[in-house]
This record gives sequence, structure tokens and C-alpha cells, in this order.
Amino acid sequence: MSPSLTVALVQQACTAAREENLATSIQGIMHAAEQGAKLVLLQELHTSLYFCQTEDVTHFDLGESIPGPSTEIFATLARELKLVIVTSLFERRAKGLYHNTAVVFENDGQIAGVYRKMHIPDDPGFYEKFYFTPGDLGFTPIATSVGKLGVLVCWDQWYPEAARLMALQGADILLYPTAIGWDPNDTDAEKNRQREAWMTIQRSHAIANGLPVLVSNRVGHETDPSNITSGIQFWGTSFVAGPQGEILAHAEQDASVLVATLDLQRTESVRRIWPFLRDRRIDAYDGITQRYLAVR
Amino acid sequence: MSPSLTVALVQQACTAAREENLATSIQGIMHAAEQGAKLVLLQELHTSLYFCQTEDVTHFDLGESIPGPSTEIFATLARELKLVIVTSLFERRAKGLYHNTAVVFENDGQIAGVYRKMHIPDDPGFYEKFYFTPGDLGFTPIATSVGKLGVLVCWDQWYPEAARLMALQGADILLYPTAIGWDPNDTDAEKNRQREAWMTIQRSHAIANGLPVLVSNRVGHETDPSNITSGIQFWGTSFVAGPQGEILAHAEQDASVLVATLDLQRTESVRRIWPFLRDRRIDAYDGITQRYLAVR
Repeated sequence: MSPSLTVALVQQACTAAREENLATSIQGIMHAAEQGAKLVLLQELHTSLYFCQTEDVTHFDLGESIPGPSTEIFATLARELKLVIVTSLFERRAKGLYHNTAVVFENDGQIAGVYRKMHIPDDPGFYEKFYFTPGDLGFTPIATSVGKLGVLVCWDQWYPEAARLMALQGADILLYPTAIGWDPNDTDAEKNRQREAWMTIQRSHAIANGLPVLVSNRVGHETDPSNITSGIQFWGTSFVAGPQGEILAHAEQDASVLVATLDLQRTESVRRIWPFLRDRRIDAYDGITQRYLAVR
Repeated sequence: MSPSLTVALVQQACTAAREENLATSIQGIMHAAEQGAKLVLLQELHTSLYFCQTEDVTHFDLGESIPGPSTEIFATLARELKLVIVTSLFERRAKGLYHNTAVVFENDGQIAGVYRKMHIPDDPGFYEKFYFTPGDLGFTPIATSVGKLGVLVCWDQWYPEAARLMALQGADILLYPTAIGWDPNDTDAEKNRQREAWMTIQRSHAIANGLPVLVSNRVGHETDPSNITSGIQFWGTSFVAGPQGEILAHAEQDASVLVATLDLQRTESVRRIWPFLRDRRIDAYDGITQRYLAVR
């Protein structure tokens, strides 16, 4: 593991045309490689529209096996460009059994590992519990030539437990492919609170664990096929944070490839001045595995 | 529990004179009461200098029993002003057995409960492991007339586990008395990163748990009695955050009494749009009670 690592995030708008989305991702990855990136993170479900705005059984047709057509494309790209790629795919595991799955490719084109989204949201416009079976692989970082990658997906970002378990399993970097946006009808104040909360909670995982965090989020407006809502305005703002939660680079709300260089030795130096892992009260954390503890 | 609650934080500089520190706290609490506060939070160890800059056995003389001389003063004040007060005292529990303890007073002057700091830091200038036995009361909120108070102390603030356990036990508000500051010799960039991380991690507890957070921090420069370091410049910046982590009010670096009004119904409404407690993967969190999980 080299002490410094150039990383890139591909932040893109998607359309209903799979080939277009793939072309945009590929272009972004090639651009990242030209700038020296050795690790590229794509956003959540980058090969399609965010199809969870409605519950529609035909959308399961978007699912694909892993390995499968998409993994073949990204495996080739990883090998040709000699970089590690983290993708996010709609996995068809069996008839009627689907997952929201991140696939990590080693720089020789091999699949280094997969992560199946553990926390599944469900709220108006984000009907993910209909589509995605909760992950059954736990919180296990994926070993690669650029370090152990603690890949988590979108809704996972709100759970300190997930980040902590990745850190305890030796993750060197936390990575979040996401697809989050605004209800266009919300007030500006509410929009600001939501985006700020989203950045804050992910920066907090960097701080609590002394790890860099990469977040790649979708951009663009996608309409609601049911016409019930005003669709989702994905807010982009992909960012790279260092192990004190400091923002090293961030994107705006347009399609972009964000490049940043991490100093991987900072985790050791930050953990020496802030040795949070040393002082965890593991004798008193039992209740974390309970749903709720108050009796009232 | 009323839907809105006016709260106040007393942020003060301390001296070696206990009576002076008490007078400043009392003045702050009276000022808070005049402005309608029903809950006042004092900073960590507000009756003395931050004595942990060196390891000196004579400093144990600062410890006091609970109930004791300080609790008598604050109990009287709570009863007379009809407000709930959260204090932070150096508890002498037995000969040679000391804790860093928060004491919560009901508005009738009764001690509603105590919390003994669970996570104890130890780094140059903050030799707390010498003075404070780790708390043995767990993470239990304290029931009061203004809600269940999840009181945690300073170093606890870096641990998402602590905030989560308070939330799972039904806390309505998270409260952090703290005493954190800069090494005056650090660069401005490092100082900014540290203070920003400190705010970010505490705001993240609000977000992860959908709860308001109150933080009261010390101000002023205190010299190092050993003259080894340049002392500590306590950075103040006490703040009140709402349940999306949004800053409702914050202080600067001078002594002040910060007043803010919380809408306690926002926890329910925020948790309805962001139902993080619903989706916790309690089946997969076992590892949280381990020191470390990676085998390498």
C-alpha cells in the first residue's frame, strides 16, 4: 500500500438508456485514469435511472447476475487502465431475489469482492424495500492493491454502526456510492438541512474511525413515473474527506469527475492524537444489538 | 413534556478560585432563568481549572462527595429558579476512587440522577486516566420534568455508540459538558480541523438519532503547571443543534450564556422522514462489542 493514493469519484446524470449511462461512466473512469487515479468510485446504480421512485415489477428486468454483462465491462476497464473500480449494480441473485450490490474490481480485472447493501430505506419516492433484499454478507471490507475498502451503499451512510464495523475489520478507506436528492417541493431551508446532514454524518464516520471517506452521488432531475411526486433532484456534492472529517475536495451539482490525493499515513497519525479505538467501552455496548431499550 | 423548551448553556473561563467559578456559574444560570430557560447545561468541571494538565496527587483534594457542597448550591438554585440544571463535578466516591460525574438537578432541587463519564481520555495535557475511574453506570438517560436527558461528558462525544445507547434508552436530548481546546502551538489549519471535527461528530449524533444536542464548552487559556506545554486554549464554541444536526445557536470564544428554544416535536417528525431506528441491522452488529476484528 503506497502512502499516497489518487482517487476519483464519477458523478453523473443517468437516462433510461443503459448504453448511454455506461458510456458516461466509462468516459469518467478514463478521465480519472488520465489524471493518475488508482481508485475510482461510481455512484449508486449508475447503469440506470433511479428506478425505485415507484414499485413496478417490470423494473426487475434491470437486474443482472454478478458476474454478468456489466461486471465484464468494468473488469476489462480495470485491467486495461490498471486501476481499482468500485461499481454499484442491481444484482439478480436468483429468480425473485435481488440485491443492491457494490462490486469491487482489482486492477487486474478480477472481482476483488462484493458488498450487498445492508440497510434498505423505504420512504415516498425511495421504495427500495420492494426491490432489494437486505444484504447477507455483513460489513466486511474488500482487500485490494490500494487497501482494504469499506464499501457501504447510500442508506448505510446514516448508520455509525456500519462504518465502525468496517473500521474494526481493518478498512483503510470508507466508500459510499449514493443516490440521494431533494423533493423539489421542499423549502430551501429543508433542502439545506438535508444535504448538510448528509455530509455531516459521513464526515463523522471519518472522524470516529480516523479514516478517509469517499462519497459519490448522482446528479440530475428524474421524474416520477407515477406523477404523484415532483420527482427527485439528485444533489450531487460528491466529496472526499480526510480522517479528521476535513473536506479535501467536493463536487457541485453538475456531472463531474472529482480527483483527490489521499495521504494514507494520516490514519495512523490522527489515531495517535485521537486514539478513539483505544478507549471504546466494549464492556458497555451490548445494547447496540437491541432494537430499543427504553420501557415506557 | 412541553413541545417547546428554552435551554441555556453557560460557557465560562475558570480560575484557581473555586468561589469565583461558582459565582460565574450562578450568575450564568440566573441570567439563563431571566431569559426563560427551563434547562441549563454547565461545562465540564466548571468549579475548577482543568486540573488534568499534569498528574499531581494534590489535585485529588478538589474532589467532593455527591451529594456534597457543590450539589447543595446547585440544588438550591434549581429549586429557587425552578429549572433543571446539569452540572459536572469531580466526584470523590471513596478514598482514592474518583469519577468525572455529571449531576442533574430537578427543578424542585432534588438530584434527578448522575452520569459518570464512561470514556476517559489520556493524551499530553489531558491526563484524565490518572484522575478518573471509568464510569460504571452505563449509558442511562436521566428522567426530568423537561424530558429524559442523555448526559455524556467530553471524550464520550467521539463515540457514536454512547449517543446511540442513550437514544435507545429513550433520551429526548443529548447533552455534552466539555473542556476541549487547542495546543497554542498548533497551526491554524490543525486548529480549524480539530474544532470542526468536534462540532461535526456531535452534530452527527443529533442526525443519527434524530435528537437535539446541547454542548457547553470551556473558554480561556489555562497554563500548564509543569511548563512543558504552552497550556490549553479552550475553544468555547458551545452550541445547540436540532435533530437534523442543524445549528440553532452557537457561542464564540468568550464567556457567554447561550439561549435557544427547542421544538421537541421535531424528533418525531424528523424520525418519520428519516426512520433510521427502523432499519438498524441489529442482527449484524455483534462485532461492535469487540475491541478489533481484523486478523492481520
